[in-house]
Amino acid sequence: MQPLRSFDDLTSLLKRSTRRVSLAVVCGSDEGASRAAVKAVEEGFASVVFVGHTDKVHALPWVENAPKEFVEFLPACDDAEAATKAVKLVRERKCEVLVKGLLHTATLLRAVLNKECGLLADHGVLTHVAMAEIPGREKLLCFTDAAVIPYPTQAQRLVQVEVLTKVIRALGTPVPRISLLHCAETVSDKFPHTLGYGEIKELAAQGRWGEVLVDGPLDLRTSLDAAVLKIKGIHSCLEGDADGLVLPDLESANLLYKALPLFCGAREAGILQGTTAPVVLPSRGDSWQDKFLSIAMAVMSLN
Amino acid sequence: MQPLRSFDDLTSLLKRSTRRVSLAVVCGSDEGASRAAVKAVEEGFASVVFVGHTDKVHALPWVENAPKEFVEFLPACDDAEAATKAVKLVRERKCEVLVKGLLHTATLLRAVLNKECGLLADHGVLTHVAMAEIPGREKLLCFTDAAVIPYPTQAQRLVQVEVLTKVIRALGTPVPRISLLHCAETVSDKFPHTLGYGEIKELAAQGRWGEVLVDGPLDLRTSLDAAVLKIKGIHSCLEGDADGLVLPDLESANLLYKALPLFCGAREAGILQGTTAPVVLPSRGDSWQDKFLSIAMAVMSLN
Repeated sequence: MQPLRSFDDLTSLLKRSTRRVSLAVVCGSDEGASRAAVKAVEEGFASVVFVGHTDKVHALPWVENAPKEFVEFLPACDDAEAATKAVKLVRERKCEVLVKGLLHTATLLRAVLNKECGLLADHGVLTHVAMAEIPGREKLLCFTDAAVIPYPTQAQRLVQVEVLTKVIRALGTPVPRISLLHCAETVSDKFPHTLGYGEIKELAAQGRWGEVLVDGPLDLRTSLDAAVLKIKGIHSCLEGDADGLVLPDLESANLLYKALPLFCGAREAGILQGTTAPVVLPSRGDSWQDKFLSIAMAVMSLN
Repeated sequence: MQPLRSFDDLTSLLKRSTRRVSLAVVCGSDEGASRAAVKAVEEGFASVVFVGHTDKVHALPWVENAPKEFVEFLPACDDAEAATKAVKLVRERKCEVLVKGLLHTATLLRAVLNKECGLLADHGVLTHVAMAEIPGREKLLCFTDAAVIPYPTQAQRLVQVEVLTKVIRALGTPVPRISLLHCAETVSDKFPHTLGYGEIKELAAQGRWGEVLVDGPLDLRTSLDAAVLKIKGIHSCLEGDADGLVLPDLESANLLYKALPLFCGAREAGILQGTTAPVVLPSRGDSWQDKFLSIAMAVMSLN
């Protein structure tokens, strides 16, 4: 498989696949989630179970016109029950991806994080992976965590490296290049986030995450621009060509996530990881097209 | 005065000015600082005193060809003495802007931060203000702090608001719109940086920084995109049209500072503030043209 260079590469590949992945859409009565899910059905790579808000979902024009054999409905009394039922579908492997519709994030996450019947993996860490298609750049850029963990502990950071590596590999890059990002190339007490980077590099070298290249701290330019790396006289196994960035904290990652579309016209997708199945949890401002890209990313990450 | 919309606006304005600002360039034997300073001389808005490394500076072709009446030389035994002498010129008001050349940042800052004969203002806070010209955006965007204070205390934050406001006003915007930036529009214990934002808004309303509009926490989009502000149903006195951003910490500000040129082809300048005179302290990777923009920004900030 060739590495994917754009979202069009990604959706083309999924269109050609013969397998449909089953989506559980929770309270999909908003345009965004339902229309994005139906688009994935139409493109041939998904089937969908709408859980909750079923009367309203039925009446949506794109749902009415969707191919009936790939669309199911499961009613629920309220949003909390819808979330619980959808999570159960995923636990029972009847669905493989969970998609948030029109309900409070907290309500959905309560069901996802439930210790007995939720979706958390053994390590118990939920984190976010974003994927950006930036005009003028040759390949998709993945990064973590723009949405969930404010200030990652070292244990959480190890999970971030793991899920980021896994997502990039699923995108067709067998040996992902991961940069542990910071303001400069120095480990410093002044910046506690940098103190754990050495251990992460050691664990990577020991094979903890399979074949992967990890380096850091590197700044954004030395991570992504071979010319700057050379000017600064720095040797890095990533060669200024990172596939993924582990950002120091949520404040910086969230800023990057918002700056890229606003200033560069980038397209972005994002999924929750650390769960036993990917969760698509879009922002309020996302269009249905954005949500479709996130669903595509989630389906791809199952590889 | 019309607000400046671009660096070309800025340099055109300075070219038309009849006043030359005197620059003290410390150890200017590198191409970057010396060539940038000479360019400012040639454009008619600066004179320069090269302090230290004078033999080498003399021999640089652009220095040899510079108009002699606006270029002086002050020798020094070593870099530390050069820094001390240049700071003294600024203290004695013989120079108005300090520019770093080829010496260690620590050596220069030691002289700047010296309690008895340095350049710190009474509040004792040194901070960084960046200015970016982003393709497709209508006006220059200023932000703090991409370079000096890792995690600002509330006292440091107040100085950041003060100097940011001052710089934007000097750029021709009499009532600056300042956004206190964060991931979302909520104050939260989970994000300590947001806890002081309320007090800053109160102080602004009380007139602490003159006529200024301050709002936050706002995210990048609600700070800079009126359409997103409307979609999210948020009322903000900035109306999605901020002139300046106070970033939560250095990690996020530095990331923005590096992302803008790398991903959007932005041009940027930056100066140290909180000192009694602006200090131009470029990054190693900056070209002489970048350094020229920072000198222009420093000269403009004296208004």
